[in-house]
Amino acid sequence: MAKDQKLPSLKVAIAGLGTVGVGVIKILENNKDMIAARTGRVIEIVAVSASNRKRDRGIDISKYDWSDNALDFTNRDDVDVIVELIGGSDGIAKELAKQSLTKGKSFVTANKALIAHYGTELAQIAEDKKTAMRFEASVAGGIPIIKSIGQGLAANKINRLYGILNGTTNYMLTQMEATGKDYEDILEEVKLLGYLESDPALDLDGIDAGHKLAILSSVAFGVKTDFANVYMEGIRRIKLVDIEYANELGYRIKLLGIASITEDGLTQRVHPCLVPLSNPIARVDNGFNAVVVYGDFIERTFFEGRGAGEGPTASSVVADIIDVARDHTTPAFFIPVNEMKTTNPVSISDRFGPYYIRLHVEEKPGVIADITAALRDENVSLRIMLQKGSEQDGSVYIIMVTHEAYEKKVMNALDRINGLASVIDKALAIRIENL
Amino acid sequence: MAKDQKLPSLKVAIAGLGTVGVGVIKILENNKDMIAARTGRVIEIVAVSASNRKRDRGIDISKYDWSDNALDFTNRDDVDVIVELIGGSDGIAKELAKQSLTKGKSFVTANKALIAHYGTELAQIAEDKKTAMRFEASVAGGIPIIKSIGQGLAANKINRLYGILNGTTNYMLTQMEATGKDYEDILEEVKLLGYLESDPALDLDGIDAGHKLAILSSVAFGVKTDFANVYMEGIRRIKLVDIEYANELGYRIKLLGIASITEDGLTQRVHPCLVPLSNPIARVDNGFNAVVVYGDFIERTFFEGRGAGEGPTASSVVADIIDVARDHTTPAFFIPVNEMKTTNPVSISDRFGPYYIRLHVEEKPGVIADITAALRDENVSLRIMLQKGSEQDGSVYIIMVTHEAYEKKVMNALDRINGLASVIDKALAIRIENL
Repeated sequence: MAKDQKLPSLKVAIAGLGTVGVGVIKILENNKDMIAARTGRVIEIVAVSASNRKRDRGIDISKYDWSDNALDFTNRDDVDVIVELIGGSDGIAKELAKQSLTKGKSFVTANKALIAHYGTELAQIAEDKKTAMRFEASVAGGIPIIKSIGQGLAANKINRLYGILNGTTNYMLTQMEATGKDYEDILEEVKLLGYLESDPALDLDGIDAGHKLAILSSVAFGVKTDFANVYMEGIRRIKLVDIEYANELGYRIKLLGIASITEDGLTQRVHPCLVPLSNPIARVDNGFNAVVVYGDFIERTFFEGRGAGEGPTASSVVADIIDVARDHTTPAFFIPVNEMKTTNPVSISDRFGPYYIRLHVEEKPGVIADITAALRDENVSLRIMLQKGSEQDGSVYIIMVTHEAYEKKVMNALDRINGLASVIDKALAIRIENL
Repeated sequence: MAKDQKLPSLKVAIAGLGTVGVGVIKILENNKDMIAARTGRVIEIVAVSASNRKRDRGIDISKYDWSDNALDFTNRDDVDVIVELIGGSDGIAKELAKQSLTKGKSFVTANKALIAHYGTELAQIAEDKKTAMRFEASVAGGIPIIKSIGQGLAANKINRLYGILNGTTNYMLTQMEATGKDYEDILEEVKLLGYLESDPALDLDGIDAGHKLAILSSVAFGVKTDFANVYMEGIRRIKLVDIEYANELGYRIKLLGIASITEDGLTQRVHPCLVPLSNPIARVDNGFNAVVVYGDFIERTFFEGRGAGEGPTASSVVADIIDVARDHTTPAFFIPVNEMKTTNPVSISDRFGPYYIRLHVEEKPGVIADITAALRDENVSLRIMLQKGSEQDGSVYIIMVTHEAYEKKVMNALDRINGLASVIDKALAIRIENL
């Protein structure tokens, strides 16, 4: 303690005291001496703000100044760093970011929606004001992926990356396989467990993963954040039958974010994939996230860790505060905004690769002939077709695996197939990624 | 180019032009513009040095100043960063490190032996002279593990880590399993492939992995580098029969480096282990390295990438140069030397855990009785014993798996067993790590 008092302090205000905010306070309190040794500064929490002052959070917040309005932090001379853990791409979070940076405060956030939408714009303010913006916790909580790409792998031209970026949906897919329960049952379970975002579409429709993918592409490829052009498709249509057939075919179904940059432009897509069981990402289960990065000199590096939760996410927030304490002035995306490229988005309909297709049809003469004719007319050829007897109601599942084909051709064929009278449930295509 | 000329330069001299040195030059040339954008500086190679000027390296080094003696670099006012890729813990490498730092140059190295032996001492010089020492490339080439621990995971008290830290031995173990060839044959193959260090003991006896483990413990736990107390045991005694039995028992054999810090002190050990097939590290094959880090808030994070080779190692060297270019002044071990702890080494004989034991004995009455008596007298109890018929010469292999036991008890029992007349080959114990 005597030693601490000689060290200069770094004064932090925290906006948002949910799980992550509480985690940040715990780390800064529990590991205070260690962090002081690592940074040469005492990280001091001076003020906190949240929507409800009274809620029992299991920690004592009475020793910190309280603000009902987090924007007050931006006017305090005794605040060096503002930590935003409120969430949401607009509203208070965005206003807090803008005002903090404009007033020369360092800004640390876990808010993926904010950075996915306004990352470049905010980075420009930080640069103009010569202050720091950091968002390690916005992607893959316990994996220091943003710093790893921007610092550890900084010598590489990175041209491709993919990952499991949403823990909740990965948990759901893992549990469907582990328990043999179908989508709806597992959905009920995660609702009860409190694993879903308050707007479940963020998880289930791949939007949360899309936010994270837009941030990763920006950091890895040095392109302006372009969330508007991320193709997103979630897991709502995945059934147990798909998981079982995928296994039989040597694959596992994972919701991946995939990004690449080529002469054609920037590909950013989030959707369920069949990945080979031999790929390490196929075995990343439950609440874990993983990211695989390809660079021109490293070949590939694989990172896996907890995707969310109090500890892992707060760990990344505090790593950012430590970075600020160490006076690292690196730009937010590790490159000045004026060096960030704008590139053409590549449309999902240009994807070229194999597809898994699940059809649920009435079993009657001519059905297969109609289906295969639709595929033939689009020049989509089949590698595998499986039909294993009928369901109790006389309907059948037909599973097909195509050779490599263009997405638009496959979708054209499925549109025609979906128009057939014998189709019970709209055909589902899942992209096979032999990563 | 016009743009480049406005940027300040950072002048680099490279000592050692083997595979990695050539890789560093390639990266700095190929990715020059990108690195300038990322750092705001032009990284300029001004001088190189190696033992043989004439050797064809596939790149043009004539445009750089040549020195026969790398120590000359330390006297040049136009050199900001000295990159040491000579190797060896002493001799010229150590002298170059000391002189570079003493004269206020930044020092970047891939030399694990140097840092394992003298890391703390050199870090102290760097600190005194307010210059930077960096050694990302000394551990696990394509994995930015040192920066990840020191920056990305900096909020955590790390208390445990383990990893596959030597690519050559991991390749050998993988190939033994894949091809069904025995140790000696695979050893011949890696000799021909040029995968072995010039002193093969560094790979085969676990010394190279030991160097890397000492560096990782130091960075992760904030302890002074203590290579002298790393327990090291290599893979020379592993036979195909061990790999096959391990598989049958649900394990794979990997040469791991394991470090932990507890109230008892610092454990640092490198030895072959049986790891459960379900652990992701069991599936890290061939030339890949992996590291798993446990922190008090992240739970665990897993990193995997190429362990060596021109590109991956050079990528880490250049990441360090980029770090220097960004003016990061963080201490070499991410904590000032006077904050680094000295801890008690925990002896390998205090290890407590299960063991795989392979015996090769003559098949005659009473052998098993003698063996099991030796174990009983040391209070080591067996969970599994396998004996599957005899070899052609009438000898038998007996494989045993113990319950958890103290290392010293197991070794006492094996000493006694090795004294039995019927023992053909000294008993081999491999530690089972249910990580």
